[in-house]
Formats: sequence, C-alpha cells, structure tokens
Amino acid sequence: MRNILRMAEKAKVSNAYLRPHFKTHHSAEIGDWFRQYGVSKCTASSVDMAKYFADAGWNDITIAFPYNPLESEVISEIAQSANLNILIESEESQRLANELVTDPVGFFIKIDIGTHRTGIDPSNLELIESLVSESTDKVTFKGFIGHAGHTYYTPDIQKIFEDSMKTLQELKNKFGGIISYGDSPSCSMLDDLSGVDEIRAGNFVFYDWMQVGIGSCKIEDIGVCLASPVVAPHPERNEVVVYGGGVHLSKEAVDENGKKCFGKAVRLSDNGWEHEVIGNVKKISQEHGIVEMDSETISNLKVGDLIGILPTHSCLAADLQGHYYSTEGEKIQKIIKD
Amino acid sequence: MRNILRMAEKAKVSNAYLRPHFKTHHSAEIGDWFRQYGVSKCTASSVDMAKYFADAGWNDITIAFPYNPLESEVISEIAQSANLNILIESEESQRLANELVTDPVGFFIKIDIGTHRTGIDPSNLELIESLVSESTDKVTFKGFIGHAGHTYYTPDIQKIFEDSMKTLQELKNKFGGIISYGDSPSCSMLDDLSGVDEIRAGNFVFYDWMQVGIGSCKIEDIGVCLASPVVAPHPERNEVVVYGGGVHLSKEAVDENGKKCFGKAVRLSDNGWEHEVIGNVKKISQEHGIVEMDSETISNLKVGDLIGILPTHSCLAADLQGHYYSTEGEKIQKIIKD
Repeated sequence: MRNILRMAEKAKVSNAYLRPHFKTHHSAEIGDWFRQYGVSKCTASSVDMAKYFADAGWNDITIAFPYNPLESEVISEIAQSANLNILIESEESQRLANELVTDPVGFFIKIDIGTHRTGIDPSNLELIESLVSESTDKVTFKGFIGHAGHTYYTPDIQKIFEDSMKTLQELKNKFGGIISYGDSPSCSMLDDLSGVDEIRAGNFVFYDWMQVGIGSCKIEDIGVCLASPVVAPHPERNEVVVYGGGVHLSKEAVDENGKKCFGKAVRLSDNGWEHEVIGNVKKISQEHGIVEMDSETISNLKVGDLIGILPTHSCLAADLQGHYYSTEGEKIQKIIKD
Repeated sequence: MRNILRMAEKAKVSNAYLRPHFKTHHSAEIGDWFRQYGVSKCTASSVDMAKYFADAGWNDITIAFPYNPLESEVISEIAQSANLNILIESEESQRLANELVTDPVGFFIKIDIGTHRTGIDPSNLELIESLVSESTDKVTFKGFIGHAGHTYYTPDIQKIFEDSMKTLQELKNKFGGIISYGDSPSCSMLDDLSGVDEIRAGNFVFYDWMQVGIGSCKIEDIGVCLASPVVAPHPERNEVVVYGGGVHLSKEAVDENGKKCFGKAVRLSDNGWEHEVIGNVKKISQEHGIVEMDSETISNLKVGDLIGILPTHSCLAADLQGHYYSTEGEKIQKIIKD
C-alpha cells in the first residue's frame, strides 16, 4: 500500500496521472487497492490480461504490447465496454487494426527511446507522420508511448529520462497526443517526472531483488515473498534445499560479482518477513531452490521449517502462482491460465 | 508417441520397467498415452502433481522430491487410494514422516550420485543403514533413487552411468530394495540401461532444444512447440519480435558460443512444424521474444504470421501453459494452478 501511495503522490507532484501496469500482480483484488488512491486507468501486457481486468470493472485499459492481429476478436470484445488502447508501430499493423478491430480503440505509437526491443526510431518522422495522419474514428491516435528499458543497465537514469523526454516532447509538439512513460527504475528513482502525461510503471507494487540492486527501492519496500519449506539441509556444503524452484520463482537471475542470484532468503515473522538477508538462491531447478547460507544459520534450520524467498523478478514469480496470501492470511485471487 | 515407444522398448531391453516422470507434460491426457505402452506407474515432482495424477487414476506414484512434512496431510490422502512413494534423505525426515503421514507409504533413500543437489553421500553407510533399519509398516523402505544431473554438463555419459550403477548396486546388494534411475541424457543416449530396476526419465516425451544440444535427441524428436505471432519485424537489426516471452517459454537459456538461446524458431506447417531452424530467440522479456533471423527470412514474415518456437526447456515452458493443442487441433488439458 505504501508503494502504491508513493507512486500516486509522485504522479500528482509531476502533474501526471498514474496508469499502473498490472502485469506485475495479475490480480483484480490487488488492482482494487489502487482505486483508493484515485487510480482509474490501468495497463496490461496481454490481451487476455486486459480482458481479465475489463471483466473486473476496469474501463480504461492500455495493452502495452504491439498489436497482435490474431487477437482482434477479443480486442473488439473488450472495446465494447472499455476505453481500450493498443500499440501500433508499423503501417501494416495500422492497416490490419482498421480492418479487423470492429469497435473503436485508441492507439499509441510505440517509440524506441533506446531499449531497441520494439518501437519506431524517433528520427523516422515519415513513418510517424503517416501513422498519425491515418488515424480514424475507429482506430484513433492518442499519443506516444516509450519504455526506457535501458535504465536496467545504465546508472545515469536522470540523463536517460531527460533524453527520453526531449525525444517524446518533440514528437508531441509536432503531432499532438500525450506522452506515456513507464520503466520502474526511472519512475522510482526520480523525484519529479514532469513532462510525462501518464506514468505507466508497474513493478513498484511489489518491487523485487533486481530493483534493490538497481536502486529503485530498499529491501524493506519489497511487497512479495515466497514461503519455502526447507526439505534438505546440506551443512557440509553450506546449502539448504528448499521447495521453491523455477516453477515458483522463474529462472530470472541477477549476477552479483560473478555469482548468480535467483532470490534472497529471509526469515519469516508472524505476519510477514524480516529484512535481513540470510541466504542466496544460487541455483534453481524445476522444484528445487539451492540456498547458500552460513553454517550458523543452517544449524538453526530443520526439515519442515519455512523460510521466505524474495524473488529476483517479482512479475515472473507472481505469474507462476495460482494465488497469494496477504500477511493477514487472506487468500488473494489472480489470473488463472486455463 | 514415438518418443514414448522408444523409451518403453529400451526399458524392456534393459529388463527394467518405466516409471516416467510426468513433470514434463503435467497432463492427465498425455499421461494416458503411456498406458498403451504398458506403463502403469509414474513419477511426480510435487505433492500437488501426485494428487492430480492420483485423481486421474494413477495408483502407483513416486514423488521424486525430498519429503516436505508440511504436506503430510495431502500425502496421506493420496496414499489412501494409491501406492505412494516419498523420498527420504535424513533421520529427521524419516521421523517426521512416521509421525505425520497417516496412511502407509513407501520410501526411497535419495543418494547423491554426483549432482550434489540433494541426497546422501553414498559413503555415509551409517546414515543409510540407520534409515533402512528404521523402516516401518507405515513408512516402508523400497530402494535407492539417484538422479545423475551432471550428465547435463559432462560428455562422458557412459562413464557416469557405470559409476552410478556401481554405487547404487553396492547399496542394493548390502541393503536390498530396487534401483530407480532417471536423467534424460543417459536414459536417451545409452542403448542398454541394465542394472536399473526402474527408469524414471520424463523429458523424453517432449524433448527440447537443450536435449538436442546434449545429444539426447534430434530436432525431429522434439514434441512440443510454441505457436508465436509475429508482432514487430525489425529488419534493420535482423530481428523479429514475437508474442512469446518469459511467461510462455520460461527464462531458461543455453549458451551457444557466447550467445544465449531461449528457443529456436521454425516454420509452422499445416499439422505441425518444420525441422529447419530459421531463427534464434536471443532475448526474452515478460511477453516479448526477440528472434534473430537473416534478412531474407524476415522479408517473408509479416505482422500476424505465426511461427513456431521450440523451447530450450520443455518442462518449464509446458508448466507455463494453461493447455496444449494436438497437431490435429484438439485441446489437451493439463494441471491448472489455482
């Protein structure tokens, strides 16, 4: 709740609104927590996820993933009841959307502001102009969307933000529309995001060990933890094996001085977990997590004890769960893949 | 079906029976395919999975993961209707199982035959003898189980197999019970597994690109493929972005001469896929797969085209799906995480 409040306040200070990315928590119940901070729009990473949140009452949703023509039927269905935005980055996508989507949607032009994953090179004004000019009543231009994913690898986040704003504002001045911006490192670390119209970050609701490493948050801010039973202590090699593997945490790892980290172990408390790291998940297989610990810590653990694992990447770890429990023990539902 | 037949025949030649690991496909329907080859016992990697297959009619199941006392209630429930085996590797686990499991189960002693993940050092005869001697009518000694996971990293698979057999047979001769053995590389690559009583491999049902790299199978043997829509061709950097990311393929990668491979792209055909690799999934994020391809291949692809991705690790990719489709287009159900 504190994480949501902080981002909602930052949006206010920056004269922007918050359209949080719900790809981190995947849960209608957690989505509802945002409403009490005035949030009424959200972002989804897939058409299925947009459908799930539309069914849960969200009526202003952006699917922040390039338009997939094969899902035009579901897109049209969502657009019947919600203001839905899709992402366009080619004339072909625009043509197909106009042909296949039957209910009005908005579109954002995806601009590559340096991540080089998707998006149009901002210097390609000819293509951008063509897409804007082909805006129709059915597939209507709304603005420019950028994701500065290179903030995950580059320390100078202020500079990336300023460069991104310069690029996106030039386009906005020329073609109109709004600016949607949203990587978690810059939205977390910068105090003022003025220039952005819409903040689209999502990971901040849970954060994770990767974001601690980047500097987006402190360990105390991490809002999700995997309860993992100790099944095999191996003090002879300073390891305990827990039930908590790739199907629970994902195989996302960060490199820490040449050592891999798939998550950090902490002690559980009565209604949550402690903030002291007591072990490193150094290896992971389908169901096993191999946690490196000092011998004293291991000597206090026995088979059947529960420890907590703070995930390296909460979005992927959360995707792998069927549900959550709150620190009060209430079951929290999320999307089911069926 | 050919993959199942081949392993069933190898079991016959080796005078062993097949207790396939169902952690690869997670599907009662696919489990049923094994029955026509005479398979009546299976392996699960979690208590939930064992419950799912017990509910689907399997009445002889081994949970090939160290006994987790916190799941004793469900273990007891499964044991009411099925012959269930659990894994024990410490006196503490054995004591807890005898205390907490209410219906009779068998137990295998997990021996570390070189993987150094879980299991007892085979030279620790004192502990092994203690566990065997504490066998009870409720938690009954069945034999020794080993997983030669180091076959994934070592080329001399024949030697690993011979060393493992020597170790396990010495224990069998001394203490009785059977030998359960099961990594996919050795079970696939060796023609004769004589000495093993029970073959526990699982990945062979689907195989994957990792197993192709190890030499366990050919690309033609891979039995699962992710249909992935092209959403953003980027010929300027020899890449296409597909809808197929970490939540579909997992983030398992193999290293190929310094390049990461999260899967291999192939062309789809009318009722399956072709066996020529047309691209490498070099990067992956939550929903995006970045596929490197030559410019000619890209020039023939457009937004909305489907390509196939052969996963690097089929067990994890399959875990992420809600269901499959057969090459005839029939929906195949699997475990749902709820």
